[in-house]
This record gives sequence, structure tokens and C-alpha cells, in this order.
Amino acid sequence: MKKISLLGSTGSIGRQTLDIAAAHPDKIKVIGLAAGGKTLPLLADQVRIFQPELVSVPKEEDVPRLKDLLEKRGDGTSTKTKITFGETGLVEVATISGIDTLVTGVVGFLGVKPTYEALKLGTTVALANKETLVAAGSVIMPLARKHGAKIVPVDSEHSAIFQSLSGYTPADIECILLTGSGGPFRTWTKDQIRFATVDDALQHPNWSMGPKITIDSATMMNKGLEIIEARWLFDLPVEKIHVVLHAQSILHSAVQFVDGSVIGQLGMPDMRLPIHYALFHPDRIATQRVPRLNLAEIGQLSFEEPDYDKFRCLKIAKEVAREDTTLACVLNAANEVIVQAFLNGSINFHTIPDYIKRVLDRHAAQSNPTLEDILEADKWARKEALALVEGKSAVRQAPRR
Amino acid sequence: MKKISLLGSTGSIGRQTLDIAAAHPDKIKVIGLAAGGKTLPLLADQVRIFQPELVSVPKEEDVPRLKDLLEKRGDGTSTKTKITFGETGLVEVATISGIDTLVTGVVGFLGVKPTYEALKLGTTVALANKETLVAAGSVIMPLARKHGAKIVPVDSEHSAIFQSLSGYTPADIECILLTGSGGPFRTWTKDQIRFATVDDALQHPNWSMGPKITIDSATMMNKGLEIIEARWLFDLPVEKIHVVLHAQSILHSAVQFVDGSVIGQLGMPDMRLPIHYALFHPDRIATQRVPRLNLAEIGQLSFEEPDYDKFRCLKIAKEVAREDTTLACVLNAANEVIVQAFLNGSINFHTIPDYIKRVLDRHAAQSNPTLEDILEADKWARKEALALVEGKSAVRQAPRR
Repeated sequence: MKKISLLGSTGSIGRQTLDIAAAHPDKIKVIGLAAGGKTLPLLADQVRIFQPELVSVPKEEDVPRLKDLLEKRGDGTSTKTKITFGETGLVEVATISGIDTLVTGVVGFLGVKPTYEALKLGTTVALANKETLVAAGSVIMPLARKHGAKIVPVDSEHSAIFQSLSGYTPADIECILLTGSGGPFRTWTKDQIRFATVDDALQHPNWSMGPKITIDSATMMNKGLEIIEARWLFDLPVEKIHVVLHAQSILHSAVQFVDGSVIGQLGMPDMRLPIHYALFHPDRIATQRVPRLNLAEIGQLSFEEPDYDKFRCLKIAKEVAREDTTLACVLNAANEVIVQAFLNGSINFHTIPDYIKRVLDRHAAQSNPTLEDILEADKWARKEALALVEGKSAVRQAPRR
Repeated sequence: MKKISLLGSTGSIGRQTLDIAAAHPDKIKVIGLAAGGKTLPLLADQVRIFQPELVSVPKEEDVPRLKDLLEKRGDGTSTKTKITFGETGLVEVATISGIDTLVTGVVGFLGVKPTYEALKLGTTVALANKETLVAAGSVIMPLARKHGAKIVPVDSEHSAIFQSLSGYTPADIECILLTGSGGPFRTWTKDQIRFATVDDALQHPNWSMGPKITIDSATMMNKGLEIIEARWLFDLPVEKIHVVLHAQSILHSAVQFVDGSVIGQLGMPDMRLPIHYALFHPDRIATQRVPRLNLAEIGQLSFEEPDYDKFRCLKIAKEVAREDTTLACVLNAANEVIVQAFLNGSINFHTIPDYIKRVLDRHAAQSNPTLEDILEADKWARKEALALVEGKSAVRQAPRR
């Protein structure tokens, strides 16, 4: 029986994780849950079903609201669940005594601290929160090594690489082939992209994901962040991480070994597979909840080089990936704020990389950062990015050329 | 230092094996060689370069011929090499004391006996001779298990499956995806195939191989024999072996696990990769002799279901693969004779499955066969097939409907 805690239980990754947990009650026991504030009724349902030891809500005022929901609709069985809140609550849920695996399904920088604390206890982390490694890889990876804690990636690409590496070591790797669909704008011209709307950018061809990560796919910043994540996770220089566009998202990524052999992981684009894999790693447990691949039915898989000129966010991220400073943290934070500004309608799609570049250029990057340096850089970058897009927001009312 | 013996040293697999051995003189020592009769000058060169302990030629009269060649062109250094001959010679080369790996690069039934004897000594066999498992899998596999001898496949498809299984067990397998190019007739209609010439059938789109195996690709008997080989090698029922046509021969095969994840091995169609892998297994040794895969350059990978109606040999082999008798041995032997008859111009391409079916129908299949039963069934099938095609050869002169 694996005891798991889950951060972000009401999000896409969280719900799918609980779906898998529910299908294997003999193998998985959910002992901790933490969720976002707008989804308290769903969280209440989850608490009722899984009866965790501890549940965390975002704010203090959510505690009585959740209690109320549990009492109103509950059958009295879930009263044993303790309720906590806020960032401290996240850390509490991540560090409940006896956890085997922490699943970090929260989006954004929020995932860093609880992951950090869980790793310090030697807990295995099923990492769906890529920002943790993007922003704080230089702190997180040595910490995991020091405490003998495993990090099993949930990102489909990194899960594919992780699975393909089974039985091998980083020394056997010649390079990795990080595949990306190219998002909704793979076939658009640079000029077409200038006029892309929020709706256009939210039409991901293969994956159903949250809005922030969907925009990151459209800018290909997502692939850029994944380069940084892969760099830390597999201890590789950026030169050994090759991005390949693959429109169908079937080959989820691959490893090229020093003898020229390429091992890759394939499957339908469905997050249940990497989540299921991460939950049961190192075992492969039978499930029918993961849709099966039928290559003959799919017919064609296509591959092409990415256009770094069209996807400037990818280019910027690749450059930042070479650095060993607070720059990647700033990239991640600035991107979060600027994407939100785009989603709010405050800025145009094609200006996203410009704003990010401006924040990066203003940052005094710090080498060998501590977690505190990173937290500070994150705060600085968000403030800076917000000021920039808010300034822009005002200018936006003026007539454009 | 790995000591290897090589059967079929002057053939395609043999020459590439020696090419790899020559590139790693610090890791591989060739101590035994055996080759076909028409290539004695090449064999003499190989003996001079690798100075094995023992070399075997097909016939007694080849012994003085090889000696003569070695003395004429030699520099006196290779006189230490002992020369032997015939089937006994093959077994002697396969069982030299101290061999780590036997590479069986001979084509056809000839590979069975020496492989059998090598496994009895616990020697690892790098198996490029698929007939050994097709004809005698029911004897060979238990023998390998009994003596703790490893069989590492060299067939690109089986090597791909073997590599994809790294770190897993047969219990983790849901099915395997055995890819096949579909050969030169993948896009031909049944009617077009009726008039296919020997030259048409010898035009393999991706792989450069010997004539017999190239014809087997054109009939897709090759894929059928590979189903039988995979069945034994990976201890799987035929229902778990799915053939997928893949025109580009880049995904060399894949494994679908019980959790729905598919791990596959990719690479350029070049036998040096599986040979290199088999020679150094379980290590991956760096080499630049294996061409690198560039997916973006290749652009498209296509997949389709095989047409069992068009490729009747594949259908026949799949049926035979379910049997646990001497039938697979008869299939293999009949196919060898009948393909030779086609290559000689004695029969038409589209009649190959008819002849094979007739031999199979006449065979009184024997369950739980011994090696002797298999040798006998092989002899019987060859005689029977020869009689059929020779009869046909006479009839062939008569006008057709």
C-alpha cells in the first residue's frame, strides 16, 4: 500500500491522479489533499471519498467553508480529516508522516516550497509541477540526492525519457529528443501569429490542459521550460537536449544512446499514462484506464525542426537554460505574469517574448542561488513583469500604427 | 575482453560483426571463424587480420585451398590458426573453450546444431540465425534456460524488443508491436504481384540483405518467421504479437506494457546497430559506426495493418506459429527450398505460398519434438518441397490457362 499526498487535487493532474487512486484502493491510500479555492465543493467530495488525514485550502476563510460543505453534504464519516490552509498548509500536506509519494499537481511557483520540504524527508516526488525544477533546479536536485529522494516526472515528455532510460545511466546518453506538438501555431506564419486571439491560442491540437500551460504550448515556452526541467532531471548539458516538433504527440520523447540506438516512449496523448506510471514506479501495474495506441489507425507520425525565429519564447528559454543562475526563475515568473496578462486581454500574443526579454534584461542574475535567493528573484520578476504589462495596458488604449 | 566465435563470417552479418570487432580491439577478441565455401579468399583475409584459434570451411577439400591462400598471401603470422571443416567444424568453432559470445550469422537450418552445442556450455549466443528458433525453439529455449545461457537477438526487430524490455519482465508485456516494411510489394496489388519477377522481389526498399531473406521480405514470410522467433524468444502467445507495417523501417519494433505505455527502439535501417548492441550487451558502448537517426530529416513515419490476403505467407506462418510441433520446422525448410526455386526461375512468385501450404498439409506434425525429430522433419520437408517444385518445373513448360 502506497501512501500518497496530492497537491492540486482539484486541477487536471489532481483529478486524474485521484481517478487512478480510486481504481486501485488496494495499492494506493490518499492521506493528504490540497486544492485551489474556487473548487471547494469538488474538494469536499474528494475528502468524503478518500478520507485523507489532512486537507489544505488556500485561505483561512476557506476552512469554515469547507467544514460547512463537509457537514452539509457529508455522511459524518469524514470528520476525522483535519483542515489546514495557505502555504504552510501545503507544506503540512506535503510532509505528513509516512508519505511514500508526494504528487505535486499545482501549477506555478507554489510547488517549490512543499516539494523542497518533502524531499528533505526523503519522500519520492511525482513531479507534475515543472516550475519547481525550472526555478529551483540548482537547489532541488542536490537536495534530492543528499536525502536519497527520488523525483519521478509526470510531464509526459520527461516521463517518456525517464521510462526510456530504464536500466541505463546518464553516462549512456548521447542526447535526448524532446518532442513537442508545436501547439496551435505550428503551421501559422509569423504574420498570422501577430493577430492571434486568446481563443486561437487556447486551441491545443492534442492535449487538454489548463489555460496557462496551453498558452505556454502556443508560445512554445512550455518546451523551453521543459528543456530546463530536463537539464536538471537528467543532469544533461543543454547541447544534449534536442527539440523535435511532432504534430501528433504520439512519440512522447526519446533517448539517443552513445551506441546510436534510440529508445522512445509512445502512447496516446493522455496524462493518465504518465501519472499512472509515476504513481506505481518502479512497477508497471496493469490498467485499462489508459487508452491504447493503435499505430495503424493513426497512420502517420511527422517530425520537423522547430522554427526558433517564429517561436521566440523557445529561443529565449534555450538561452536561459545554459545559465546556472536566478535567470531561469525570473523567466518562469515573468512568463506566468505575462501569460496571465495575455489571457486577460491586456497584451497581444506576439509581444509575450518581448515582455519576457525585457524582464530578463533588467535582472541582475545571481550565481549559485539559495532557495531564498530564488524566492526573492521570483518576487522581483513578478513585480517587474506586472509593472511592464500594466504600463503597456495603459498605452494599449492609444491608437496603434 | 570478450572472446567471440563467429559463424558465417563472410556473409553480411559476419562482415559487419568483424567490422565492429576491428573497431574495438581492446574489447573483442575473435577466437573462431566459420564461413561459406565460395568466399575462401575473403575468409583468408579475415584469418590473417583476426588470427583466430580455429577456422572452419564447408568441405574437406576447402582445407588445403584455405591453407594455400594463407601461405600464398600471408605473412606467416596466421599459421597458428587450426583449420577444420563441415558441420562438425561449425560445432567445433561454436564450442571453443573460453568463448563468451557465439555470433550465429549463418543463414538457414545450418545454425541449429552449433547453437545447440554452444548453449549447452552456457555460452551467450548473439542470434542472427532466426531459423534456429523458428525450427527448434521448443528445444532451444528450455536448453538455454537449463544452462543459464543468454540469447541476445541480432534481428533488428527482436533486438528492438529486447532493448525495449530492458529493466522489465515478460509479465509486464501486454503485447509486442512487430514492425515490418512490407517489402517491395507493400503498395502492389495482388494482380500486380502475380507477374512479379525475381528482380522485382529483390528490390528491398530499406534493407540491404542476402537474396533469400530479401525474397522472404517480399512474401512477408520473413515477418511470419519473426513472429515464431519472437514467440520463443520472449515467451509470448501468438495473440500478443501484432504485426504493423511501417514502410520506413525506423521504429524497429516496440513493446506495449500492461499499463498502456509503449516503449520502442528507433534507428536508421542498419544492421550494425543490433550487431553492436548484441556484442556488447548488457553495456552500451559508444560508437560512431552506427549512423544517427534524424527524425526531422526523415519527416514522416507511416503505419498500416498488413493485408493477410495479399501476403499469404504471413498468414500461413501466423497459423503455424500457434502450433507447438514440428510444423514450424517444416515451414522453414519448405520455404528455403521453394524460395530457392523462385530465385532459380523455376516457379512464379505468387505460387510460393501454395507450395508451402502443400508441404505443410502433407506433414504429420509431431508434438514435443526432440532435436532429432526436428532434424528429421527438416530433411523430410526439403525433400518434399524439392519434389513438388521439380514436378512443377516440368509442368511449367505446358501452356497455362
